[in-house]
Amino acid sequence: MKRSLYEETHDSFRESVRGFMARHVVPVHDSIIAERAIPRSVWKAAGEAGLLGLEVPEEYGGSEANDFRFNAVFLEELAKESMAFASSFSIQGDIVAPYLVKLTSPEQRERWLPGYVSGDILGAIAMTEPAVGSDLANLSTRAVPDGDSWVINGSKTYITNGLSADLVVVAAKTDRDAGAKGISMFAVEHGTEGFVRGKKLDKVGQPESDTAELFFEDVRVPKENLLGKLNHGFFHMMTFLPQERIAAAVANLAHARQTFDETLAYAKDRVAFGQPIGSMQYNKFLLAELITELETAQAFVDAAVVQHAHRELSAVDAAKAKWWSAKVQNRVIDACVQLYGGAGYMNEIRAARAWKDARVTRIWAGSEEIMKEIIGRDLGL
Amino acid sequence: MKRSLYEETHDSFRESVRGFMARHVVPVHDSIIAERAIPRSVWKAAGEAGLLGLEVPEEYGGSEANDFRFNAVFLEELAKESMAFASSFSIQGDIVAPYLVKLTSPEQRERWLPGYVSGDILGAIAMTEPAVGSDLANLSTRAVPDGDSWVINGSKTYITNGLSADLVVVAAKTDRDAGAKGISMFAVEHGTEGFVRGKKLDKVGQPESDTAELFFEDVRVPKENLLGKLNHGFFHMMTFLPQERIAAAVANLAHARQTFDETLAYAKDRVAFGQPIGSMQYNKFLLAELITELETAQAFVDAAVVQHAHRELSAVDAAKAKWWSAKVQNRVIDACVQLYGGAGYMNEIRAARAWKDARVTRIWAGSEEIMKEIIGRDLGL
Amino acid sequence: MKRSLYEETHDSFRESVRGFMARHVVPVHDSIIAERAIPRSVWKAAGEAGLLGLEVPEEYGGSEANDFRFNAVFLEELAKESMAFASSFSIQGDIVAPYLVKLTSPEQRERWLPGYVSGDILGAIAMTEPAVGSDLANLSTRAVPDGDSWVINGSKTYITNGLSADLVVVAAKTDRDAGAKGISMFAVEHGTEGFVRGKKLDKVGQPESDTAELFFEDVRVPKENLLGKLNHGFFHMMTFLPQERIAAAVANLAHARQTFDETLAYAKDRVAFGQPIGSMQYNKFLLAELITELETAQAFVDAAVVQHAHRELSAVDAAKAKWWSAKVQNRVIDACVQLYGGAGYMNEIRAARAWKDARVTRIWAGSEEIMKEIIGRDLGL
Amino acid sequence: MKRSLYEETHDSFRESVRGFMARHVVPVHDSIIAERAIPRSVWKAAGEAGLLGLEVPEEYGGSEANDFRFNAVFLEELAKESMAFASSFSIQGDIVAPYLVKLTSPEQRERWLPGYVSGDILGAIAMTEPAVGSDLANLSTRAVPDGDSWVINGSKTYITNGLSADLVVVAAKTDRDAGAKGISMFAVEHGTEGFVRGKKLDKVGQPESDTAELFFEDVRVPKENLLGKLNHGFFHMMTFLPQERIAAAVANLAHARQTFDETLAYAKDRVAFGQPIGSMQYNKFLLAELITELETAQAFVDAAVVQHAHRELSAVDAAKAKWWSAKVQNRVIDACVQLYGGAGYMNEIRAARAWKDARVTRIWAGSEEIMKEIIGRDLGL
Repeated sequence: MKRSLYEETHDSFRESVRGFMARHVVPVHDSIIAERAIPRSVWKAAGEAGLLGLEVPEEYGGSEANDFRFNAVFLEELAKESMAFASSFSIQGDIVAPYLVKLTSPEQRERWLPGYVSGDILGAIAMTEPAVGSDLANLSTRAVPDGDSWVINGSKTYITNGLSADLVVVAAKTDRDAGAKGISMFAVEHGTEGFVRGKKLDKVGQPESDTAELFFEDVRVPKENLLGKLNHGFFHMMTFLPQERIAAAVANLAHARQTFDETLAYAKDRVAFGQPIGSMQYNKFLLAELITELETAQAFVDAAVVQHAHRELSAVDAAKAKWWSAKVQNRVIDACVQLYGGAGYMNEIRAARAWKDARVTRIWAGSEEIMKEIIGRDLGL
Repeated sequence: MKRSLYEETHDSFRESVRGFMARHVVPVHDSIIAERAIPRSVWKAAGEAGLLGLEVPEEYGGSEANDFRFNAVFLEELAKESMAFASSFSIQGDIVAPYLVKLTSPEQRERWLPGYVSGDILGAIAMTEPAVGSDLANLSTRAVPDGDSWVINGSKTYITNGLSADLVVVAAKTDRDAGAKGISMFAVEHGTEGFVRGKKLDKVGQPESDTAELFFEDVRVPKENLLGKLNHGFFHMMTFLPQERIAAAVANLAHARQTFDETLAYAKDRVAFGQPIGSMQYNKFLLAELITELETAQAFVDAAVVQHAHRELSAVDAAKAKWWSAKVQNRVIDACVQLYGGAGYMNEIRAARAWKDARVTRIWAGSEEIMKEIIGRDLGL
Repeated sequence: MKRSLYEETHDSFRESVRGFMARHVVPVHDSIIAERAIPRSVWKAAGEAGLLGLEVPEEYGGSEANDFRFNAVFLEELAKESMAFASSFSIQGDIVAPYLVKLTSPEQRERWLPGYVSGDILGAIAMTEPAVGSDLANLSTRAVPDGDSWVINGSKTYITNGLSADLVVVAAKTDRDAGAKGISMFAVEHGTEGFVRGKKLDKVGQPESDTAELFFEDVRVPKENLLGKLNHGFFHMMTFLPQERIAAAVANLAHARQTFDETLAYAKDRVAFGQPIGSMQYNKFLLAELITELETAQAFVDAAVVQHAHRELSAVDAAKAKWWSAKVQNRVIDACVQLYGGAGYMNEIRAARAWKDARVTRIWAGSEEIMKEIIGRDLGL
Repeated sequence: MKRSLYEETHDSFRESVRGFMARHVVPVHDSIIAERAIPRSVWKAAGEAGLLGLEVPEEYGGSEANDFRFNAVFLEELAKESMAFASSFSIQGDIVAPYLVKLTSPEQRERWLPGYVSGDILGAIAMTEPAVGSDLANLSTRAVPDGDSWVINGSKTYITNGLSADLVVVAAKTDRDAGAKGISMFAVEHGTEGFVRGKKLDKVGQPESDTAELFFEDVRVPKENLLGKLNHGFFHMMTFLPQERIAAAVANLAHARQTFDETLAYAKDRVAFGQPIGSMQYNKFLLAELITELETAQAFVDAAVVQHAHRELSAVDAAKAKWWSAKVQNRVIDACVQLYGGAGYMNEIRAARAWKDARVTRIWAGSEEIMKEIIGRDLGL
C-alpha cells in the first residue's frame, strides 16, 4: 500500500541520507562487522552530514527539525543496511538527545551539544542492570550526595554504544525506599574516575554495535550532572520512552521490509524443480502473507509516527507499535531464511544476518511482555 | 489508537445510523433470528432514514454522498449489532448499487433506483455456482440471445438476500469458449418466469440473513437487461469487487471490535479464584494482544477506506484488507469465546453467535486463498 | 503412522461397536439433531449390546473389561459419528460409572448398577455452577445434614445429559469454610422433591446432547447417598478426572480424524481451476501439516491410553492429552472448513457441524487454562 | 510423560555415553567452538569407547548392535551438549555407515570399516549442490566411465564434516538424460587428485562442525568405488534417508528438551518484580505449553524409533518425525530465548547458541517443504 506520511521535504532528506550511507557506511560495513564497532569516522561523517542533531536547537549546531518524520527517514535508511546501525544511531539521536536538550542547564547544553551534533561526543543510556532486567523500580545502582557531588555506585549491562560513549546517562536510586519515585538521572562523562567499561559483549547478532557492561565505583559527578529533577528519573524515562519505542518500531519494519524485498528478488530468480521457487504456490501464498503482515503493521506505525510528529502519540500506542513491529519483523525474516534454504544459514547472506540481528527487538527497549503489561493496564486490567 | 479518518460530518451521520439501529433493528433482532430473515419493514425504515442511497444520484432519491466513509460508518454500526446485517445491507448499498447506477440506461435507473433507495426493491448478486466456487471463468450459467431477449439457464448458490431480492444481478456465460472474456451481467427481476428460488440455506451462522440457491430455467429477459457491455462481465465484476472487499473489511473489524469490547467488560466483571478473570496475567496479556491485532488491522483498513474515498484504492490493497481483517476477526472472536468459558458456547451470549457469524468471512467475497493469489501475482509471482 | 495400542480383541470389539452404530445410531442421527436429545431407545440398545458396563462388575451385569482400551474404541466410534455422542456416552461410561462402582455401598450397587448397565438409569455429573465456573473450591451449592438426610440447595449448569439423567452425582459444599477440603459428592435421583431441571440450553454445537441447568431447592437425600467420604469430594473428583480427560482426548482426535478423512476425500474430488483442489500445492502442504498434527497428537494420546489401561496415567499427563488434543482438533477442523469453501458454512456438511461441535472441547472438562495451570504446577511453578 | 522405549541395556549404554561426553567432549567444547571443528582426538576417543560402529559388523570391529535405540541414545546425549555434535556424529554413524556396510564389496569393507570404527576414517556425504538445492534429480555433478575408472566432475556444498572427511560418498549423474534414474553413488577418498575442499563455511550457528564446499575436477576413482548399483543412486539415497531423518528427529528433540530444562531452572531462579519469572502466570502457562509440545512430539518420535528398530519405519513417517520435531525444537528454543530476556541474546548462554544451532534443522536433510511434499503424496495428492 502506498504510504502517505512523507512529504517532499522528507523525500529529499532521504536522498541525502542515502548519499551518506553510500559514501560512509556501506563501503566500511564489512570492516565494521569484523571490528565489532562503528569507527568514530562514521559518526563524524554523520555529524558533518547534519544527521546527528535533528532534535538539537540550531544555536548548538543542530537542525532543530522538530518533526519526527526526519528521524524516521534516517532510521529507515540505517535499518535497511543493518539493524545495528539503526540502533546505535537511535541511541544518539532519538533516545539520549532529549535528556541533553530538555533536562540540562544552558551551560551544559553549551558544553555538550555542539560535540554531540558533530559526532565528537557519543551518548549512551544506562538503565538495565544485571540483576533486575526490566524491573526499573528495583535498581541497585545508587547515587548519594556528598558535598557538591553525587557519588555513584553500581553496574549496568547491555548498554548499546557502551564502549565508545563519551557521555552516559545513568539511572540511579536516590531514595532507597521510594521505589520508582526514588530514581534520578545523571550524566557521567568518559574519563571520570571509577567509571569503568567491561568487555565488549558477545552477542547473537548485531556485531556492528558495541554493547558493554559498565561499572561505577565511587564515581563522583558534580551536582549539576543530575539531569532533570531529583527523584523524577522514572518519570523522565517514561516521558522519553515512547520516542525510543516508536523509533524502534520504524527501524524494525524497514529492516524486515528490506529483507523481504531481497528475498522476493531471490525467490523470483532461484530455480528448483524447473520453476522459480517464488512461483510455487506454497511460497507464493507465503510471500503474499508476509507482504500483508508488513504493510498492515506499517500502516499502524506510520499513523503512530504522524501522531508522534504532532506530539500526540500515547505511551500505550508506542508500546503497541513496538512489540507488534518486532513480532512481524521476526516472523517475516524467519520465513525469508526458510525461502533461502541452505543459503539462509550462511552469514554471507544478508537475510541470515538479519535473522540474528532481529531477535533482540522482541526483548530490548521493553520486552514483549512489558509491552503487554502496559497495554493490559491501559485496558483497565 | 485514535482513528483519524472520520470528520464531524461522518460522526453526525453515525449518530443518525445509531438512531435507526436503536429504533428499527435492535428491538426486532431476536425475531429476525427466529425468522431467519430481515423483514421488509426494516429495509423500508432504512430507506426512510436515507441509508440505502449513499451511492445513488439525488435525482433518483439517493443522497449521492460519494464518500465511502459514509458507507463505512453505516457498515460499522450494522456489524456491531450483527455481521449478517452488515452483509445484507452491503449487498444492497455497496455491491449491487454500482451495477444499477453505472451500468444501466436512464430508463432503467428511473425504473429501479427510486424503489432501490426506498427499500421497495432489494438487490442481490449471483456469481457463485455449486460446481465452480471461486473459479468465475468457468461459469456454467449461460445466456443466449433470442430475438429481443436473452434466455438464461443455470443455477447459483450462496446468494445473500437470495429469497427476498426483487432484482438479481446475474453473471452468465455469453461466449462459451472465451473463458473470463465471455461473461456478461444481467438484471433478472422477481416474477420473471423460470426464475425460481431454492430453499433457505441452513448456515452455520448469520441466521439473520436469507441465503439461497437460485435456479434459472429458460428465463427470458429483455435485451436491455444486459448490464454494461457484452462479454465485459468479468471486467465489471473486477471493477466493483474492491468496494465489496473493503466493505467486508470494514464490517469484519467493527464486528470483532464490538465482540472484544463486550468480552473485555465481561472479563473485568467475572470473578474466579478470587479475582476478575481479565486481571489474571495470562488473560490480561491475551487481551493486550487482541487489542493490538485489532488496532493494527484497523490502521490499514482505515488507510484503505480513505484511499477508496478518493477512488485510489487498488484491487490488491483491497484484497489485503479483506483477508487480513477476516483473519484478525476470527482469531479475536475465537479468543473471546475462550474467555467466556462455558458461557461462550451458549447462543444467548453474543460472542458465541459472533464466532459462528465470523467464520464465513474468510471464505466469501473471495476466499483467503484467492486473496493470496491476487497478492502473489501483484508481487510478480 | 500405524497405531500399536490395540490388539485383536479390541479390533473385534470395534466391529461390534460399528454394528451398534450402524443399526441404532446412524439411522436416527438426523432425528436426534432435530429433537436435540438422544432417545432412550438408543441407550437401551447400547445396553443390550453390552456397551454401557465396561467398568461395571459382572455381578451387576457389566462386562468388567477393566481395560480402558475398550472404552477408547467405543469413544472413537461414537466420536466419528458425532462429538456429542462421545460426550454423552462418556458421561455414562467413563465419568459417572467410577463413582457408582467405587464409592457406593453393596446395596446401592445392587439398586443402581443393573439399570445403569441396561440403559434404564442414565447418569450425569453436576460440578460446574453458574457463578464459579472452573473454581470448584468456591462452590455455592451446599449440603447440610438433617436427621437421616442431607438437604441440598444450589444450582448447577452446563450439565450434559442433564435433562434425561435418572441419577445425578452432585458436588456440594459440606464445610463452608474448608475450601476444597469441604466438598462432598451426593447421588440425587430423578423424582426427588425439589430437584428441578431448567430448560435445554441452546448451544453453539452438539445439538445431539441435552445440556441443562439443574436446580436443587431443599432436596432431601438419605444419608447413604453421600458418595465416598465426607469432605473428600474434591479428592474423589481429582481421582476420577484423569479418566474423564483421557476419554475426552480420545474422542477429540477420533472426531478430528474423521473430519480430516472426509475432507481429504472431498479435496481429491472437488475440481477448481482445472485440478482437484487437494492437489494444489498450498492445500496439499496444508493437508500434510494436518495429518502430521493429528498423528503426533495421536501418538501421545495412545501412549496415555496404554498407561491408563495399566492404571499408571498421571493427572498431569491426562491434562496434557486433553488440552493438546482439543487444540489439534479445533485447528484441524477449522482448516477442513476452509477447504470446503462455501459448502463448509452449510450445516448439511459434516465438517461444518464438526467445527461447531469441537469448539467446546477447549473449554469443558477443565479449560485449556486450567490444564496449563495443572501442568505448570507439575513443573514446580 | 514417562518414556517407554528404552530398556535396561539402553540405559546402561547411556551411562557409558555420558562418561564419554564428560571425559572427552565437555572439557574441550569451548575450544571446539573457537576452532570451529571437532579435533580428531575426539573422534578417536569415540572409536575407543565403541560409539562409532553401532551399525558395523563385529568382524570389522563394530558392535553390530542392530537396534536403532542405541544410535538414538548416543544422539540424545550428543544433542544435549550441542546440536552440531549430534549432526557430525550422525553423519558418521547413521548416514554414511549404511553405504559402507551395505553397498560395498568385502574388500572395501575390510579396507574401510576398521578405520571407520576407530575414528581414523571419517565419512561425509555429498548430495546438495550450489545450483540445485533439494532437487536431486537435477544434479550437475557427473561421473563418466573411462577404462577402469570413473571420472567425476562437479561441486557440492553444505557438506557437514566436509573438511575433515577421509571418505566422501558422492551422488553423481551417470545418465544425463535419465533424471532421478540416472544417479549413482561413489566413494571418493581423501587425497584423490582433483578432489579439493573449499573454505570452511561461515554458518549462522553450529560452529562446532566443519561445513564446506567440495570440488571435483577430473577426479578419477576405480570402477569398484561405485557404491551399490549403477543408476540406482536415487533409490539408495531414498532407502537410507529415513534413518537420517529419524536420527535428526531424535537429536532435535533432545536438543530442545535440554534447552527447555535449563530454561525452566533459570525461570525458577531468576526473580523480577518480586517473584521468580517462571511463576508469573503468562510464563508458567507458556512453559506448560512448551513441555506439552515437547512431549507430544517425543511420543511420536519414540514410536517411530521403535518402528525403525524393527525395520518397519516408513519414509513418510520419518518425514513427519523430521519436520515436526524441527518445528517444535525451533518454537521451544525461541520461547526459551525470550524467557532469558537480554541474557538470551548473549552467546555465553547456551539457549542463545541453541537458538542459532536449531535454525538449520528445518532446512537440512530435506527441508520442511520437501517433507510436506512427501507427506502430501502419501495422502494421494
